[in-house]
Amino acid sequence: MTHKINHLAIVVPNLDQALHFWRDALGLPLARTEENPEEHVNIAFMEVGTSHIELLEPTEPESGIGKYLDKRGPGMHHVCIEVDDIAAMMNRLLEHGIELINDSPKTRKNDGIQYCFIHPRSTSGVLVELYELPS
Amino acid sequence: MTHKINHLAIVVPNLDQALHFWRDALGLPLARTEENPEEHVNIAFMEVGTSHIELLEPTEPESGIGKYLDKRGPGMHHVCIEVDDIAAMMNRLLEHGIELINDSPKTRKNDGIQYCFIHPRSTSGVLVELYELPS
Repeated sequence: MTHKINHLAIVVPNLDQALHFWRDALGLPLARTEENPEEHVNIAFMEVGTSHIELLEPTEPESGIGKYLDKRGPGMHHVCIEVDDIAAMMNRLLEHGIELINDSPKTRKNDGIQYCFIHPRSTSGVLVELYELPS
Repeated sequence: MTHKINHLAIVVPNLDQALHFWRDALGLPLARTEENPEEHVNIAFMEVGTSHIELLEPTEPESGIGKYLDKRGPGMHHVCIEVDDIAAMMNRLLEHGIELINDSPKTRKNDGIQYCFIHPRSTSGVLVELYELPS
């Protein structure tokens, strides 16, 4: 069983301002930017070693991320951990009484990544995402 | 210039309860535990790929981490990014107008790691620690 941090997601009010720190000052390479109109966010992916930092800028105050920013302020939103077998891991978590947000893995259309979320109530306060990369 | 996520620190009300998720259920290897009476925290370091997750349990409500838990609740506290040359990086950050919490790198007695903190005002809301490992 192996794990790695795939990415750490950060909610920011303004992507350009955030890039001033993470890219220009700290010097993390910008891997790519992405507009996600369905989720109402603009995203920038920064490389940091074998992981990424994902900057999320809401484009709509009433969206999920927009409301999060309004309620909690900017900062770390979730950590995504890559696992070998997400279905087996979800079963294992349920056997340990861990509360999952998704009943079964979801699959992203664009890249085939399978993912699910674990409820912060079960993790000591952290929204945890799991990824299984396509083989 | 290289970077990696050295660790992600999470403030938890109870270390045993947190280990039930991070170690027993998710299966991250427990690298070590540590008592830090000066900072009034008990710490557990979990391995996740080439990074660590650091669980911080305050042992004193009036300590820095104790007050943080009381005010913000459990969750992600800071992310630590390893850099090659911390002094050069601190100069670079200052040149970009970034606000540092420490004027110069501090050195830990037990392992020689040099570290400093960057103010969340400059990072879009994230407390960022920098590490330079001893060569």
